[in-house]
Amino acid sequence: MRSASPGDLVLSYANGKVGRIGLVADFAISAPKPTEFGTTGAYWNDAGWLLPVEWLGVALAVSPQAVLERLAPVLPKSHSPVRAENGYGNQSAYLAEVDAAVFDVVLEAAGLHRSEFDAMMPSATVSAFAQRLDDLVEERIDQDQGLDSTVREQLMRARRGQGLFRKRVFDVEPVCRLTGIAQPNLLLASHIKPWRACGTASERLDGHNGLMLAPHADFLFDRGLVGFEDDGRTLFSSKLSEGDAQKMGLRHGVRPPAKPVHAKSGGYFQYHRQSVFIP
Amino acid sequence: MRSASPGDLVLSYANGKVGRIGLVADFAISAPKPTEFGTTGAYWNDAGWLLPVEWLGVALAVSPQAVLERLAPVLPKSHSPVRAENGYGNQSAYLAEVDAAVFDVVLEAAGLHRSEFDAMMPSATVSAFAQRLDDLVEERIDQDQGLDSTVREQLMRARRGQGLFRKRVFDVEPVCRLTGIAQPNLLLASHIKPWRACGTASERLDGHNGLMLAPHADFLFDRGLVGFEDDGRTLFSSKLSEGDAQKMGLRHGVRPPAKPVHAKSGGYFQYHRQSVFIP
Repeated sequence: MRSASPGDLVLSYANGKVGRIGLVADFAISAPKPTEFGTTGAYWNDAGWLLPVEWLGVALAVSPQAVLERLAPVLPKSHSPVRAENGYGNQSAYLAEVDAAVFDVVLEAAGLHRSEFDAMMPSATVSAFAQRLDDLVEERIDQDQGLDSTVREQLMRARRGQGLFRKRVFDVEPVCRLTGIAQPNLLLASHIKPWRACGTASERLDGHNGLMLAPHADFLFDRGLVGFEDDGRTLFSSKLSEGDAQKMGLRHGVRPPAKPVHAKSGGYFQYHRQSVFIP
Repeated sequence: MRSASPGDLVLSYANGKVGRIGLVADFAISAPKPTEFGTTGAYWNDAGWLLPVEWLGVALAVSPQAVLERLAPVLPKSHSPVRAENGYGNQSAYLAEVDAAVFDVVLEAAGLHRSEFDAMMPSATVSAFAQRLDDLVEERIDQDQGLDSTVREQLMRARRGQGLFRKRVFDVEPVCRLTGIAQPNLLLASHIKPWRACGTASERLDGHNGLMLAPHADFLFDRGLVGFEDDGRTLFSSKLSEGDAQKMGLRHGVRPPAKPVHAKSGGYFQYHRQSVFIP
C-alpha cells in the first residue's frame, strides 16, 4: 500500500473478472477506517492505509481463466493476486504488485493497450479523499451529545489548524523546525497525529500534538514525505526526490539545527513515524 | 485596509463610544462582499477588501468627548476617525490609522494598558475567513437551478483545486513557475482570480485561470504575498520579508527563468495584481 506511487495503474478483480482499471491518484495516507466510508474510489487495508485510486470509465470484464495460458508465466511467484495453476483469485492478496506484462495480457484481451493509460493524469489528489474522511469525523463530533458546545466548536476549528489548537501549538513551538520561519502568518498549525486519527478531544486540542510549519513543510509532513526523529533529525521519504526537496529550499537550504522534540510530543511523533511517514 | 498587518490593534467606534478592541488576525484579502455575510469579525471596505479582525472580550465604552482634551492633540491631522474639535465621529473615515498614543488615551480611560494586548496572538488566520466566504459562494452554486449537476460537481471540486480544473490547469502549465517543481503530487492547482471572486462557472473552471504551484508558492500567491507581471517576473510584496522568502528557498533559491504568462491568462493576472497582490 505504502509503496504505491501516483500514476501507477491498478486492476480490480472481483467475481471472477478483472472489471476495472484505475489510476493511483496520490500516495497512501493512514487513517482508522470509518465504517460509514465505503470502498468507493479507494483501497483500504487492515493497517488502516487508504490508497486514493481514480477508477477510469472503462469496463474490462476479462476472465483470468480465459487468458491463463499467457497470464500464468508473467504472474508473480509469490503473493500473486490470481493462482497460476487455475486462474482463481487469491483471497489472501488484497493489493499485490504485478508486472507490466500482466497488464498487457489483460488489456489486450479487452482490446486496449497500456500506453493509452500510461500518461493519464489523475484529477484528484489525496486532499480530496482526506477531506471526505475529515467530513465523516466532523459529522460524528457534531452528533456527540457528550461534548460541550465550546469544545465542539474548538474541535471543528482545530481541524483547520485554527482557534485554541493554533494558540496552544504556538505556545509549545512557535518556529517552523524545517525552515526556521518565525513569522506567525506564514505558518500553519499542523497536527502531528492527524486530526482524523485522534481518539479523543484532548488529543485533537493538545498543543503538544502540533507543530507550527511553513506551508510546504506542513504539506510534506501531513503526507508523510518528511518526518522527525525524537532527537529532532529530519527524515526524508524515499518518495521525495532530492531535487524536489532542494527546489523547496530544503536539505541544502537555510535550516535551523535539529532540536529534540518536546517530551510530551514523543508519542505523537512515534505515531507519525509509524503510520504517516512513508519510508 | 491593505496596509494593516497581523498583530495590529483596532479600536471600534460606534454610537458615540469606542466599544471594542480588536486584533488584526492576518493580511487583508479581496473578495466581492456577499450580502449574506455580515460584518461580524471582519472589516469590509467598498473596494471589497476584507480585513480579518479578532475582537477581544473586553468592553471599553469610552466616549471620545470625555477624553477630548488629551485625545485631540494625538489625533491624526487628516482622515481622523474622530473630530478633534468636538469629539464626534467622522463619517467618512471607515478604517483610519491612528498613533499608539490614541490607544493609550482610550485604554487608560478604560483602566487598561496597551502592553496587555501587544503580545497577543490571534487564534485565526485569513484561511478561516476565506473558508466562510467560500462556503457562502458554494451555497449559492448549490442552489443555482440553472446549473447542470455535472458542472455543479466540478465547480465544488474546483474550489479545492481538484477535478476538471486541476486537469485543465495542468494542461496549460504543468510546472510551478516559482520553484520549478514538476512532480504533480507536490503541486496544487491554484486559481489566479480566486474561486470565490469568479463571476461565472467558466471562469471557475478555466485552465487559463490557474497555475500549478508548490504548496508554499500557492500559499503566498493566494494571500497576495507574491504576484506575477505579464512578462513572468515575480513580484514580492513588501509584507514578505527577504529573510522569510529566503527561508522558503525563494529569491536566492533555484528558480526557473521568468516565462511570460499565457496570453489567455492575462486578464486573470491583471485581476490578481489589482485585487489580490499586496504591494
